[in-house]
Amino acid sequence: MYVIMVYDVNVQRVAKILHIGRRYLTWVQNSVMEGTLTRTQFRRLSEEVQKAIDEKEDSVLFYTLRSEKDVRRENIGIIKGGPENIV
Amino acid sequence: MYVIMVYDVNVQRVAKILHIGRRYLTWVQNSVMEGTLTRTQFRRLSEEVQKAIDEKEDSVLFYTLRSEKDVRRENIGIIKGGPENIV
Repeated sequence: MYVIMVYDVNVQRVAKILHIGRRYLTWVQNSVMEGTLTRTQFRRLSEEVQKAIDEKEDSVLFYTLRSEKDVRRENIGIIKGGPENIV
Repeated sequence: MYVIMVYDVNVQRVAKILHIGRRYLTWVQNSVMEGTLTRTQFRRLSEEVQKAIDEKEDSVLFYTLRSEKDVRRENIGIIKGGPENIV
């Protein structure tokens, strides 16, 4: 499955979420990561995120797709992710 | 088509991008908007965004899908968008 994760968390927890996310996904933009995961990996990622955030203050959105082929990405302005992220 | 827009722009241009985005999409989280658009609407939106940003400093990502049905959304923590956004 293909996962796009967008997070909006208190600045105190940004580094923590970034650290968890990077173990599963590739950083593409401020607060956005994406990548191909198995269902098990995705479950683990969301469990780790759930434990790390304050559910009363933070918000993390996961968009999941069957495959990366189901989505097109268009970038306007600077590309913040590394060259490995450019489709 | 279904469009997810994620923006990372200088604070001076956030209000402008938000204003443009809201005319086409629904706000779902800090820096994230989404909605169903025609190809023409999407082209207009991206043209307006392109004119409004500083391409050397800002970054706007559009994820486009054939249909909203191709994507699932899972939210952890608080839901920032209005109730009309909850799938």
